[in-house]
Amino acid sequence: MAASSKSSGSDGGFLSKTLTDIEKEVYVEDWSISSDELGVGEGWSIEKRRLSGGLSDGVDAVEVNNGKLSFVVVPTRGMGIWKGDYRGNFLGWASPVKELVHPQFVNLEARGGLGWLDGFNEWMVRCGLASFGAPSLDVIRDNTGREKDVLLTLHGRIANIPASTVRAKIGLKAPFELGVEGVVYERSMFGSNLKLTTSITTTPESNSLKISDTVQNLRSSPDEMQLLYHCNYGNPFLEEGARLQAPIRRVAPINPVAMQGIDSFDVIGPPQSGFIEQVYFMELLADNRGETRVALVNRDETRAVSVSFSVKDLPCFTLWKNTAKFEDGYVVGFEPGTSFPNPKRFERERNRVVKLRPEEQYRSEVILSVHIGKDEVRDVQRAIEGIRINTKPVVFKEPIRDFSRV
Amino acid sequence: MAASSKSSGSDGGFLSKTLTDIEKEVYVEDWSISSDELGVGEGWSIEKRRLSGGLSDGVDAVEVNNGKLSFVVVPTRGMGIWKGDYRGNFLGWASPVKELVHPQFVNLEARGGLGWLDGFNEWMVRCGLASFGAPSLDVIRDNTGREKDVLLTLHGRIANIPASTVRAKIGLKAPFELGVEGVVYERSMFGSNLKLTTSITTTPESNSLKISDTVQNLRSSPDEMQLLYHCNYGNPFLEEGARLQAPIRRVAPINPVAMQGIDSFDVIGPPQSGFIEQVYFMELLADNRGETRVALVNRDETRAVSVSFSVKDLPCFTLWKNTAKFEDGYVVGFEPGTSFPNPKRFERERNRVVKLRPEEQYRSEVILSVHIGKDEVRDVQRAIEGIRINTKPVVFKEPIRDFSRV
Amino acid sequence: MAASSKSSGSDGGFLSKTLTDIEKEVYVEDWSISSDELGVGEGWSIEKRRLSGGLSDGVDAVEVNNGKLSFVVVPTRGMGIWKGDYRGNFLGWASPVKELVHPQFVNLEARGGLGWLDGFNEWMVRCGLASFGAPSLDVIRDNTGREKDVLLTLHGRIANIPASTVRAKIGLKAPFELGVEGVVYERSMFGSNLKLTTSITTTPESNSLKISDTVQNLRSSPDEMQLLYHCNYGNPFLEEGARLQAPIRRVAPINPVAMQGIDSFDVIGPPQSGFIEQVYFMELLADNRGETRVALVNRDETRAVSVSFSVKDLPCFTLWKNTAKFEDGYVVGFEPGTSFPNPKRFERERNRVVKLRPEEQYRSEVILSVHIGKDEVRDVQRAIEGIRINTKPVVFKEPIRDFSRV
Repeated sequence: MAASSKSSGSDGGFLSKTLTDIEKEVYVEDWSISSDELGVGEGWSIEKRRLSGGLSDGVDAVEVNNGKLSFVVVPTRGMGIWKGDYRGNFLGWASPVKELVHPQFVNLEARGGLGWLDGFNEWMVRCGLASFGAPSLDVIRDNTGREKDVLLTLHGRIANIPASTVRAKIGLKAPFELGVEGVVYERSMFGSNLKLTTSITTTPESNSLKISDTVQNLRSSPDEMQLLYHCNYGNPFLEEGARLQAPIRRVAPINPVAMQGIDSFDVIGPPQSGFIEQVYFMELLADNRGETRVALVNRDETRAVSVSFSVKDLPCFTLWKNTAKFEDGYVVGFEPGTSFPNPKRFERERNRVVKLRPEEQYRSEVILSVHIGKDEVRDVQRAIEGIRINTKPVVFKEPIRDFSRV
Repeated sequence: MAASSKSSGSDGGFLSKTLTDIEKEVYVEDWSISSDELGVGEGWSIEKRRLSGGLSDGVDAVEVNNGKLSFVVVPTRGMGIWKGDYRGNFLGWASPVKELVHPQFVNLEARGGLGWLDGFNEWMVRCGLASFGAPSLDVIRDNTGREKDVLLTLHGRIANIPASTVRAKIGLKAPFELGVEGVVYERSMFGSNLKLTTSITTTPESNSLKISDTVQNLRSSPDEMQLLYHCNYGNPFLEEGARLQAPIRRVAPINPVAMQGIDSFDVIGPPQSGFIEQVYFMELLADNRGETRVALVNRDETRAVSVSFSVKDLPCFTLWKNTAKFEDGYVVGFEPGTSFPNPKRFERERNRVVKLRPEEQYRSEVILSVHIGKDEVRDVQRAIEGIRINTKPVVFKEPIRDFSRV
Repeated sequence: MAASSKSSGSDGGFLSKTLTDIEKEVYVEDWSISSDELGVGEGWSIEKRRLSGGLSDGVDAVEVNNGKLSFVVVPTRGMGIWKGDYRGNFLGWASPVKELVHPQFVNLEARGGLGWLDGFNEWMVRCGLASFGAPSLDVIRDNTGREKDVLLTLHGRIANIPASTVRAKIGLKAPFELGVEGVVYERSMFGSNLKLTTSITTTPESNSLKISDTVQNLRSSPDEMQLLYHCNYGNPFLEEGARLQAPIRRVAPINPVAMQGIDSFDVIGPPQSGFIEQVYFMELLADNRGETRVALVNRDETRAVSVSFSVKDLPCFTLWKNTAKFEDGYVVGFEPGTSFPNPKRFERERNRVVKLRPEEQYRSEVILSVHIGKDEVRDVQRAIEGIRINTKPVVFKEPIRDFSRV
């Protein structure tokens, strides 16, 4: 703890420990702190490790434990969240890719732009920032001002860029917030220059964590930005008969495959070999502040996870149903985003790609919560009902032109 | 040796030391053991190092020395074997690429899929597992179930994937087997999920090492697999007048260039500037257990290397003659494989691509031996004769449709 | 200093410290030496560090300080020079990419071959060695002797290849030369095999550093080579009204965009948002030994930088004006090269691609100097005038066929 310092001024009452600061050449390989050590609260801890060997060689991981909920933030993979645990319930999913994969082993250009899948196993992974969605061609202007066709690789670059600064933060006064902050730059000469500042925090014994992000355009000219939070759940929340609960205004299948399943789009099926992903695009209702919430509730309504966000910042919600066999990744993804994960050109035509002025910041916040027991599950269901207020969702049986290339 | 433990049960009588186990977050940077230390046998040793700097930065290498034969297994490069030495005779070849190259510096997609060549300098490198052979286009089904054209890069991915577990193993009872075991996963979400388990062992003072591999399909559906052992030899076994000795059933040149050299396909020429590789495809005879053997014998028949394997597991044998100038890589490759290294589509059409059911395992074993002195060379020649039993090989003067795209 | 040794023989009077030697498995993580320690001269120092964390993880950097001039050589990035400082004047430029980027995070193939730009922020970065220039298609012969279309990525590979050997060198006798030597191989099986040997040195209190390079073809057959020194300057030398001073024989704009600015090609404009780079191709005059010099002089002629080289070795000079807004990289590049940075095929047609015989070496030397104060600036201006001797440059108002694809 030698390099720690109590912060002052606007940070009043936080202990902040710099784990990485490239510009200042600060880098801490291993570090930890706990309630016991600090004499503040109890049962919580933060531990930072550098992994070694295999595909994980050189990966930085920071585990935050609030006493009941723990989760692993991965600075080396764009400040995503690998996995978590809430009172013995696993948070995340069982990808065929088991280990944390260092970006040095991920070639985003591989297999026609699908290389991102070689490292995909996070509970929450951001897609973006210059683009996300299926691999597709786009036209950029190169350094000479000429148009150039380029391949936008699956889900963009941000998940495979290490953070330039990482900091652990512990509140010294109630509510004793604790978590990790980081800055990741997606930038290049003659290219995008987008700065992601994220703060991922929780409070002692809480059942949730909060992801507070700011994306800023550092170029001197307006530039595009896309951001999607790919939040993925498997067992023990996902099971046959589990359900999506969401205040849906309208929903449509992405394509003919999803069309087949539209009548039970909100019901989870059993693991099936050879299952082909079904994707549903949705517009959600929100409360009067713009907040909304979606949940995955298990069959007997004793366990649920929920994702909360503002439809002002993240107006498009995508449900990714991939109820493949366990060994192939039995998983459902909740994906609040600035747009749908279609090819960027399509989203641009629909005016769903964010354009940031120079220095302009885009803020978004996502809260991931866990609900154990009938009471807690009922509470989150009621909260979602409270947003829906009896509105019946418009369910399109076929892909619609506004959402999909049809 | 703190973390060592005598194994028990089915491993009876082995000392086993975990050097890497990503899941358990075990990683040993440097380690060694020897007969002296252990008081078992004499003259042998195993040494594990992590290399630093340049293109080798971060490469794990394990040197096994049985007292006469030593070789370097490289977990970071898919458990290939870099080079070896038998009583002062160098095993391997002098590639223009001199150092062990960490996969972080190899872009398989570079130069139209030839990037693999930037790290190619092993004595034995596996090609596969989803595909091997010349760069070629193939059609895969992507996550949406749609067909997608992808580039299969030269010789596949396995040689550039680090092992997830690595273990040194020493037998405590005769024959005091010693070596390295490892597991390498070639897997991705929505992609292949092939698990290679390898054991590379020798015995004290032996003139050979044994590679015992299992490839398992971890997907829930049948999947393709290709595996080829690219075993490469230069000086002092390769020289003008050296010869291939093999129990050939039939042999054909791959293309018009190889056709030119068909009459002396089994004779090694001198290093030649501008030499273009000559490749010969063969079916080999085997003994009644399916075992076969090929040898490279130097001109005066005082030195030989041999490669033994089963034609049941590895039915296709490819001879790669690349008798270029020394500085360009004067080398001959012996390549037992599940198929020939043609584009995967061609091999699929010929029914030579292995298809593994879920959980199915494919086993193969390759033994690399060295023979020094007229007696030992004669012994291996006789062994090969014993398989051939006077069968005359069918030598096709031109490429044939069964083996090559003609 | 344990591993240091006074060299002898031809190295007479040098202390030489090996920092990296892959073949000998020598690698020094952190090291430093100074005049005080050695008791030779005063005020100078050499410091080698291995950076950790973020995009810089694993980067080796060697800072040489002659008492007045300091600069950072980066073995991990092909022995380029990151940035420098001369008596408080920053040398280099402010790229949008701020940190030293390890090659593991640079995919040269990305964005249609523009991935090089993800790590581009050096004061001096070499482009080459098999090719440089804009991304373009070229035809190579692959291992089978067949022609193959490949993408030559922007500015080639050399800047993203770590050095295989690195050495600090300190002269023990006047002029007490100090600096760094290194060897970088750009090589691959069946590909180029070019060895760059570089020595980057200065002398105590000097205002300049010297880059002495040798590129050798290690193949057994003749091979092509391209080398360009991309020397980049921003504030405080670059500003509105700063000027290029050069002994120009003829100059032409690269394209219609540059054509617009031809009348003030040698005058620097203010930072402009949306500015599109203007590139001018030049042939320079030289003194009777072939030496020439170009300078960037600030508006009030109190500060200048100059670049000296021989037109025999580096006959083509390219001026890269990229007076974009500061945040986008306000920069001018001086680029002496073996050719212009056009697609390699174009330069080959113009006979400007170097062809090296087996073992042949190509030598080039570039001196980077700084001039502070009216007197020093006047001196360098006079030196350039002395080369020009009243020759009026031929200024082509439009791109010419000899220099550009028009």
